[in-house]
Parts: sequence; structure tokens; C-alpha cells
Amino acid sequence: MPSAENQQQLDIAAERAQCTFNPALLTPLFYGGEEKMRQLKKLEAMIDSEPVFDRDDRYFLGRTERFKRALPMVKRYVELRNEHGLTPEESAYFKTYIDDYIPVHLHESMFLPVLRSQASDEQLKVWGPQAENFHIIGCYAQTELGHGSALSRLETTATLDIERDQWVINSPTQSSAKFWIGTLGKIANHAAVQAKLIINGKDYGAHPFLVPLRSLKDHTPLPGIVIKDQGPKQGAVSMDNGYARFNNVRIPRENMLMRFSQVSREGVYSKPIHPKLAYGGMTAVRTTLINHSALSMARAVTIATRYCAVRRQGNVDLATDLETQVLDYPAVQYRILPLLSHAFATIFSGYWMNEMYAEYNANISKGDVSLLKDVHVYSSGLKSYCTKLTADGIEEARRCLGGHGYSMFSGMIDFHRQFLATVTYEGENALLTQQVSRYLLKLYKDVVRNPGLHLSPPSKYIVSLVDYPSFKNQRCGARTLKDMYRDDVILAAFQHRAARLIHELAQAEKSGAGWSDLNLECMRLSKAHVQYIMIENFVNGLEKRYNTPEQQKLYRAVKQVYSLHVFYTMETELSEFLEDGYFSPVQAAFVRQGVKDSLKAVRPNALGFADCFGFTDKYLNSALGSYDGRAYERLAEMTEREPLNLEGMTDASGVVWGYDEYLKPLIHGRVQPYRAREGAKL
Amino acid sequence: MPSAENQQQLDIAAERAQCTFNPALLTPLFYGGEEKMRQLKKLEAMIDSEPVFDRDDRYFLGRTERFKRALPMVKRYVELRNEHGLTPEESAYFKTYIDDYIPVHLHESMFLPVLRSQASDEQLKVWGPQAENFHIIGCYAQTELGHGSALSRLETTATLDIERDQWVINSPTQSSAKFWIGTLGKIANHAAVQAKLIINGKDYGAHPFLVPLRSLKDHTPLPGIVIKDQGPKQGAVSMDNGYARFNNVRIPRENMLMRFSQVSREGVYSKPIHPKLAYGGMTAVRTTLINHSALSMARAVTIATRYCAVRRQGNVDLATDLETQVLDYPAVQYRILPLLSHAFATIFSGYWMNEMYAEYNANISKGDVSLLKDVHVYSSGLKSYCTKLTADGIEEARRCLGGHGYSMFSGMIDFHRQFLATVTYEGENALLTQQVSRYLLKLYKDVVRNPGLHLSPPSKYIVSLVDYPSFKNQRCGARTLKDMYRDDVILAAFQHRAARLIHELAQAEKSGAGWSDLNLECMRLSKAHVQYIMIENFVNGLEKRYNTPEQQKLYRAVKQVYSLHVFYTMETELSEFLEDGYFSPVQAAFVRQGVKDSLKAVRPNALGFADCFGFTDKYLNSALGSYDGRAYERLAEMTEREPLNLEGMTDASGVVWGYDEYLKPLIHGRVQPYRAREGAKL
Repeated sequence: MPSAENQQQLDIAAERAQCTFNPALLTPLFYGGEEKMRQLKKLEAMIDSEPVFDRDDRYFLGRTERFKRALPMVKRYVELRNEHGLTPEESAYFKTYIDDYIPVHLHESMFLPVLRSQASDEQLKVWGPQAENFHIIGCYAQTELGHGSALSRLETTATLDIERDQWVINSPTQSSAKFWIGTLGKIANHAAVQAKLIINGKDYGAHPFLVPLRSLKDHTPLPGIVIKDQGPKQGAVSMDNGYARFNNVRIPRENMLMRFSQVSREGVYSKPIHPKLAYGGMTAVRTTLINHSALSMARAVTIATRYCAVRRQGNVDLATDLETQVLDYPAVQYRILPLLSHAFATIFSGYWMNEMYAEYNANISKGDVSLLKDVHVYSSGLKSYCTKLTADGIEEARRCLGGHGYSMFSGMIDFHRQFLATVTYEGENALLTQQVSRYLLKLYKDVVRNPGLHLSPPSKYIVSLVDYPSFKNQRCGARTLKDMYRDDVILAAFQHRAARLIHELAQAEKSGAGWSDLNLECMRLSKAHVQYIMIENFVNGLEKRYNTPEQQKLYRAVKQVYSLHVFYTMETELSEFLEDGYFSPVQAAFVRQGVKDSLKAVRPNALGFADCFGFTDKYLNSALGSYDGRAYERLAEMTEREPLNLEGMTDASGVVWGYDEYLKPLIHGRVQPYRAREGAKL
Repeated sequence: MPSAENQQQLDIAAERAQCTFNPALLTPLFYGGEEKMRQLKKLEAMIDSEPVFDRDDRYFLGRTERFKRALPMVKRYVELRNEHGLTPEESAYFKTYIDDYIPVHLHESMFLPVLRSQASDEQLKVWGPQAENFHIIGCYAQTELGHGSALSRLETTATLDIERDQWVINSPTQSSAKFWIGTLGKIANHAAVQAKLIINGKDYGAHPFLVPLRSLKDHTPLPGIVIKDQGPKQGAVSMDNGYARFNNVRIPRENMLMRFSQVSREGVYSKPIHPKLAYGGMTAVRTTLINHSALSMARAVTIATRYCAVRRQGNVDLATDLETQVLDYPAVQYRILPLLSHAFATIFSGYWMNEMYAEYNANISKGDVSLLKDVHVYSSGLKSYCTKLTADGIEEARRCLGGHGYSMFSGMIDFHRQFLATVTYEGENALLTQQVSRYLLKLYKDVVRNPGLHLSPPSKYIVSLVDYPSFKNQRCGARTLKDMYRDDVILAAFQHRAARLIHELAQAEKSGAGWSDLNLECMRLSKAHVQYIMIENFVNGLEKRYNTPEQQKLYRAVKQVYSLHVFYTMETELSEFLEDGYFSPVQAAFVRQGVKDSLKAVRPNALGFADCFGFTDKYLNSALGSYDGRAYERLAEMTEREPLNLEGMTDASGVVWGYDEYLKPLIHGRVQPYRAREGAKL
């Protein structure tokens, strides 16, 4: 009998052998095509060869140490970017691949986009090149201690001093302190500060101002500004999210970012022409978060699938005397494989969203903002749904690893902590569902008023509500389990459910409920609509991408993943298909059977799918999920580097720090012996 | 208008004023009565006055620092325990209250119980007092790198050398290394090692042996033993979970723990009389985990409720110009208040389990093991359900805190990381559901064979399946929403659902499915049964504890929490009540309405319930959840202690460590400037 270690390598080889398609054919899809993949794989190799980005020690480091490691990364990143002239896309991938939020991350992902979109052309000519070259390092200072994303409630003020032609920036209260601002705490020398613009006592609402924070000469904080790092967080430990308070800080009038609004030398305020254009940034970030969700879910699935393929526990096969591969238990398949299916669904919806956003951006340059609403609503809905799905999914995948999932060496914990922030930032997930539902409700009212109205495909189904009596009598047409696999049956079911929830929301509103009493209805509806469009995007994405004959094997395999996604989602939401009689009990049973059958169908290809995402071992940084399956050896190896085992904490004879002072007195009986207290009182 | 800080104090006072009962009346319940509460509150004060247990710095410390802080805690804990003669219950509470796993935690919670239950009386006479006084510090070494809870697959061997009257302990393979053993890595000088007992080549299966690990004189590891700390983990960072490998380690024959099995000088093996008695330990720990779940859920709810009462965001009241208390949004109520209801449900089921365990223990001393099966099954089922509910619930509560929930200062993260281990240890949660379902299935078969069979109350409902045709026609009798509040209606619904799932499992088995193909059915059934008994325990617990007239206000308030628990659970599982037609669509609508109504009913008492658990601010260690509601001030205060803001990381002029080397070259333009690459190649 081979040792457990050798068995793991046999198991992983056997898994690879049974895959029905070539995983390498799929990988380019996730890198944006063959050519891009070649480039990005070169970039990965470059980063792997640079010692400052090494991550072998990462799991042993406390926050201060992680921050100290991040500063050399900042410098080396900029050097390499400049030396190789990395494209913006490559720069972004660089920072994804090093898998740590270096403290200039938000300079590039928030400050620069805000500067580019909000500064006037003249301002950009001056500040743009400085910021792009990191002479100016900036942060985006919106959130305050007491105020989240609602710009209207910010307390920081920028008051015009007409005489001196300056703005005076103030944080009048504790709760007005800027808080959560990445790159602010220690690194940034400028901030794009959102502050209430005040002229002659009149409040014009929040506007962005470029405020110098630290001396460009020696980095000392400028007078009137208190800046601090805001302390430890769940994740993003290398990032200096910061706290800042302003006390009569003066900046030139020209430091207001003046692309959309302006204030003249005379103190005259001019309104923006398109007020909503100033909000484009959040939409862009939300779109990114959908792709980020897909990547993160795929990462968790890769680790979980590989480890559950080489981990053997429980039932013993009498012929081989081997325990069962954990991945062969339905309970494990049921928890991991749907996550794989969600990863694919999220990938396809990410593409869909990217394309919509690109079209919107192209239109804007032509002055056409017609897509703004759709981009806003769909990026909100998908962000809300996909970040939650992924945040919960990673944790579920971690739990499938058994005890070793609790070790940092699992590679499942550090990136999950980082990811957990996404459910809150750029619009709290529950809150975002209101935007989606309000939009659908409006479309419904519009189409009732005007039944000939053209609705774009993802919400076209709302038309079915116009003839409500016949809508109410809609029933699912599936007579067999096989019917249940048909795209028309599936889409009709999801459409019916979402439409019903729109109708119910409208009824509730009509019967006098205030909008904020309808939170739960909005949450339910937004989820139903998003689940529907994700399935539609999955179908369309598949058709679009695997239509050549040689890709048919691939197509069939991914189609099984699609069915799993559909059935699992239906099963999770089963009551919503049952409660108005749309599904019969028999159809509900089809759904449950569909889940079981799909799990069986996907199981043989599980490792192939894990491989297809193309993650490197360096990136995964996981003892349990590496390509070669040597989980136990790697776990044991990694313990060697644990600081508690090294000099300073364990001496040459193997005795732990503190033994003489804290343990020896106990072991040698130099502490008063224990005797249970007599009487009740302490 | 008051400042946000003052407003927070006004808000929390207003919340306290609107509570319909006196929270202080409830607190003793959670401490086990008035008298115990007085004692334990004294203990809390004693601990708070001891500097080594101070937790102000905790969130800033990396793992090595946390471990270094834990050693003085170990010594001081033992000194105080001995000095004051703390009872075992008080000692246990001591370690709960300091809220950190000190590295001797498992000496007392695992090693000592194993020693007491598995060592013979003669062995106990020698080792017991030494272990109780920490001269022997022990760990319980069962889990191996490649093997979890299945004793039968352990690889570590103990081979009898008859000639020298010794056991020879070996770890023959990498995967046989002991792993995850708390207190092993650095602290323990003995281990109760589970190893395959081998005599003359015959394998008698796993048995426990007392193996010295480190010299009692100077703590150096003994020859033939490699011991290491196993590295960083999700939580339990102060604990030295360890790795050990044995190479021909010799111990006296008498070091086998011989209460149940014995091996004589001649090498003759004697079997235990009651084989299952050796497994009592896990059941005890599982029972504790139910209580631990309740406590942890209550803690998360306390923090979330207090902060959401003082946090104002979103809609503005025109009269007061105040934003809405976050706790007034249904979306927030829907995520926090059901957790409160689950905390109560878990508390009552914890009591029920404690009582059953106490009865079982009392019986055992009389040689009666009849309750073993029940204790095993119910502790498994409840542990599986309650730890998952709580692990997920804490995270949900954290997300309700908005952005500040991501700060360690929220007080929601550190203890959650610790708690997350419970879903895996002492029986992985998904796995445990098989025990519950197998038991129910057996009862079903028994009662079908013998319809007169007496079933104990929590599974009595199975009898209804005997007349299956009339069972199949059962329908929920609720005609109004009010009917739905009736205990008989509620319990009947949960009984019907669980019984149906038992029947379906039996059918699936009859139709030829292997047991391990029925994982999903087992998971579903176990959950249904546990949800049912939790509701029954809630009802009974309420009746038992609040039956005096002066407690009627309390009773009414907790009863609303009970209804919320019921409706929320029903809504979560709605499809399982609908899919066989037991609920009609109208009844499903009652359930959804019941959730909304219950949220409204519980809302005014939310803060009262948060207060009633009696947590001290020291224990909560949360900027957001302290009793006085001063959330923003505390958050700002806590940033002062962040090491990045202190000497070593920030100099006197406010400049960060590493500026000269890593930032100045960028800011001062000493790095090659950026120019986008020409041509595609990297």
C-alpha cells in the first residue's frame, strides 16, 4: 500500500485522467484570450522572480510586519511598471497577482480615476502627470466616522474665503473625521476630499477638493491636519486606512476639482450640466467587484476541490483498504460543486457587465448617457448578489477542508478576510437591492401605462404582468425531469418568479406601505431578478464562446456546470417557485433530483475545472490546494517556518520562551497547591 | 442639534426607556441563578483587576505576541484558582471570561477528563493530583495529520515489548504525525496519546497511553520525539496546537490507561466491558458547545443591537433633521433580531441538553447507560445545528455594522475567528447529521414493526407515520395568521415535516440507495428534527421559567422573541412545508407576514434584550457595542494605541518608517518615469 503522501499523488493523477475535456483550453478565457494570457503569464513569472513579492512568510506576520513588507513592494512595483511600461490592465493584474493591498492601491484605483473624471482639463494637465508618476500620492477621502456613502450627510466643510481666494477646510465634529480612507494613514501626500461647499453661508452640497496632506519635501503632516492610521482590520492589513481631521486648513480656490462645477474668483458657483456624471466612479468599481468575486470563488473552489480529491476519510474500500476520497461524499459535493457553478455564472455575468460598461463609456464620450441607469442598476444588483455569494462561498469551501481548513496554511483564510470587505463597500449589499427594485418597479409602472413600451432584454419579461389574470395562471410546463433541463422552461420559471415579486411590491406600495417599510420585498425581488439575469448570461455566454466543433466536449462539460447552477439556485429558492403554485410538488421533486444528478455529472470533471482557472501555486499560497496534491507534506514543511519554533521563541535545547518564569513554578510545585474552597463565598 | 456623540447617548437612553420589561430580571437566568451570578460577577471583577488579563491591546498583537501574553496568564490563572479555591465551574468561567485560549486550556478541558475517565483508580491516584496541580501538564493527542475523528484509522502505533515490559510508540509515516493537538506544541510535558495497541503483531485498535513528552526537570523534549508548534490558525492564536512524531519512544507498560482495557505483564489483553463508555468525552464537549453557541450569538447580538441603535444613516426626519436609526430599517431588523431569537432558542436547548447530560451522568454511576444513545444523538444534532447557526450568525451581525464592522475594534472579529473552529471539531457538522438521521430511521423501523413501542417525547411524533395514508393527508389547520401563532399548530407543522423526511429517507434506502449516497437526505432530516426540538424546548423552557405573576411582562416579551424564532425558521425552510402540500400558499403568506409582525413586536425591546445578557464592556471589548453607546468616541480613542501611529513606526515629526528608502525616491522623482510600452510584447 502506498503511503498517504504517495497516494495523494496517485489520486490527483487519477482525477486528471478522468476529466472529459482539456482544461488548458478553458484557461485563456479567464485571461481574456490567448495573447493576453501569454503576456500576463510572463508578468506572473516576473513577479515570482522578485524577492520583495515573496509570500512564503505572509501567514506568520502581524499587521505591523505586513505593513513594513508592503512599502518595498510599493517602490518595486512602481519601478517595474515604469521600466516595462506596463499597460493599465497589466498594472491592475500586477496588484491582483501579488495578492496584498499595497498601500498605494487606492491611489491608482480611486484617487486617479476621481482626479481624471472630476478635475478640469487645465487641472489635469498640472496634476495628472505628477499623480501618474507617484510624485503626488493621493487618496479619496469621502467616508467619515459617522457617515458612509450618503454624500448629502457629510459634515466636513470647505468654506470660501473670497478675500484670500482660498477654501478653508474643517472637520467641525468628531463624527466628521475622515475615516476608512485607504492610503491616507501614512502614505498619501494629497487627498481628494469630499466636503460641503459653502459660500457666504450657503451650502451647495458635497464637492471634491484636492487637499495637500503632507509636505512634498519631507512628508511631515501639514499644519492643521491630524492624520493617523485607524487601526487593525479584518483584512487589508497592509493598507493604512486612515483617520484625518482638518482644522482651518487653507487651500487655493483652484484646488476645487472643477470639471463639473466651478467657483469663480468672485465666488460665483456654477452647477454641473449632467449632475449624475460625477458618480461614475462607484459604478466602475462595482463592475470590477463582479469579476473579483468570480476570481475569488474560483480560487476557493480550486483549493477545496484539490484537497478533497486527495483527502481520504471514512468508509473503507475493502479491496484497496483505502478510505473514500472526501470528494466522493454527496455532502461534500453538495457544498463545493455548486460553488464551482456559481464561479462560472459570475464569470459570465462579469463579462456581460464589462461589455455594458464599455459601451456606456464609449457612449459617454459621444455625450450619450442613456445607459447610465442600466449600468448603475445592474452593477449594483450583481455586486450585491455576487459578493455575498462569494463571501459565504469561500467560507463554506473552507469548512469542507475539515480541520486543516482552520490553518492559515490552507490558503483559504487570508484572502477571504480581504474579500469580506466587499459586501459593505461601494454600497452595502442590502441597501443596493433597493436601487434594483425601485428600477424594476418603475419599469413595471411605465409598461402598464404604456404597454407598447420597449424594454431591454434583461427586463423584457415584465411585459407579462400587463395581462395580470393570465400571468396569475401561469404554471411551469415541465412534465418530466428532462423538461426541467430546457432553457425555455428554466428562464420562464425565473422570469415568472421575478415578475410576481415585482407585482407584489407594487401591490404593497399601493396599499400604503412606505418605501422604507418595503426593505424585505426589495431584497427578495432584487435577488430574484439578479438570479434570472445570471442564468440568462450563463446561457448566452456559453453559446457565444463554445460554438466551434472542437469545443463541443468543453461545451458539454460546462453545460453540466450550468445545470448544477440552475438546479441548486432553484432548490435554494424553492419556496418562491412553490408559494404561488407555479411549481407543483412534483416539479419541486424534479428540482431536488436535478441537483443530485448534476452533482454526479460534474463530479468526474471537478479537478479539471479546478485546474482550468490557471492559478499558480505561488498565487494560491496553499498547502492544501497546490497543483501536485502533496497536501500533508506541504503542511508539515510549512510548520518549520513558524516563529514559535525558531530562535527567540524556542531555545537550542527546544525549550519555549518564558518557561523559567511562567511554567517552571507550576511544574515544580512552587505555587500554593489547589484545594477546593470551603463554603460558598468567593 | 446635539453632536453625533451626544445623540448616541440620547438614543441609547431612549431605547432603554421604551423596553417593556426589566432586563436585569433576566440576567440571572444566564448565570444559572441569583446566587451563582453574584459569585461569577465577583470573579469577573477579580479578573478585571488583574493586569495580565487586560485586553486593551489585544487587537494590535500578532500571533507570537498573543502567545507571549498568554504564558503569564497561565501562571496567574493557576495562582488565583489555587489561592481562592475556585470550583471547577468557576475555573471554567474564568477561562471563558478572559476570552482567550490560554495554552493550558486543553489540559483542563480534554486531558484531565480523559485521564479521569480512562485511567484506572490506581493510576489516577498517582497521576491525578499531579495533573490537577499542573505538575503534569497534559494534552490529548488523537488527531493525526492524515486522520480526523475516526479512531479506527489512526496510524500511530504502541507495540508491546514483553521482555522489557514497555510500549514502543511510533509514528511510522508523515501522515501519522499527531497534529492539531492543543497545548502540545510548546507547553505540555505529557500527552494522552491514542495509538494502535499491538501485541505480537496483532492490532487491537486505538487505545490511550500516557506518554511523557518533555523533561519534568528542564522541559526539554525527550529523545525520539519531534515536537513543533503547527503554525498560525484562523483563531485560537494564543494556543500552541502542535505537531509531534514519535520514533521508538519507550514508556512503561503501566502507562497504558487501563480503566476499560488492560494488558497484563504477560501481554494478555482484556477487553472493556462496556465498549462505548470510552467515548463519553466528546459528548460532554458537544454539550458545552451548545451553551457556547448561545453565549457567542448573544454577544454578537448585543454588539450589533447597541450599535445599530446609535448609528443613524439614510432617511432624514424633517422635524428633527436626524437620520434614521439603522435599527429601524426592516432590512437590519431582519438580519439582527432573528439572531436574538436564535440565541434564546439555543439557550433553552442548552439547558435541556445539560439536564439530559446530568441525568445520564448520574445514571452511569449506577451502571445505567440507557441514556447514552439519546445523549449522543441530541448533543450531536444540536451541536451540528447550533454551531453553524452561530458561526454564520455572528458574521451576519458583523455585516450589519456597516463599514466599522470591518474594524477589529468592532469586537466582532476576534471571537468569531475563535468560534469558527467549532463547526469542525468534535465531529464535523455535516457528518454529525448522519448519526441523528440513522437514529430516527431506526426508531421509525422499530415503531413500524412494533406500533405499541414507547418513544421518548422528542421523537414521539414518529408514531404518526405508522398510519401512512392518513399521515400523507395531513394538512396545516391554520385559517388565519393568528392560528399560526398557536403552539399546537407550530409543533404539528415541524413534526409533520420531520416525519415526512424520515419517511422519504426510509423510502430512498428501501429503493436500494447506499447509506453514503443519502448524505443530503440526512442533512435535511437532522436539521428538521433539531429545529423541531429547539422549538419544543423553547416553549417548555418559557413555561418552566416564567410562570410567576410578576414575570408576566418578561414572559410576554420573550414570547414575541419565540414567535420570531418560529416564523423566521419556518420562512427559511418554507419549501419543506410547501412541497408536499402541508402548507397552502395562503399559509406560506401567513408565515412571511408573521416574520414582519414579529420583527415589529420585538423591535422596541431590542436593546433591553441586548442588555439582559449581562456582558461587561471589558468582555465585549468593542468600540461599537459598549453599554453607554459612545461608539464614535471609542473608535477614535482606540486608534491612538495603533502601533503604526507610535514610536518605531512613526517618528516625532509624524513621518512613517521607511519613508526615506521607499517613498521619497518616488515622490522626488528619482525613479525612471513611466511611459506606456510601445508594441505588445512584455
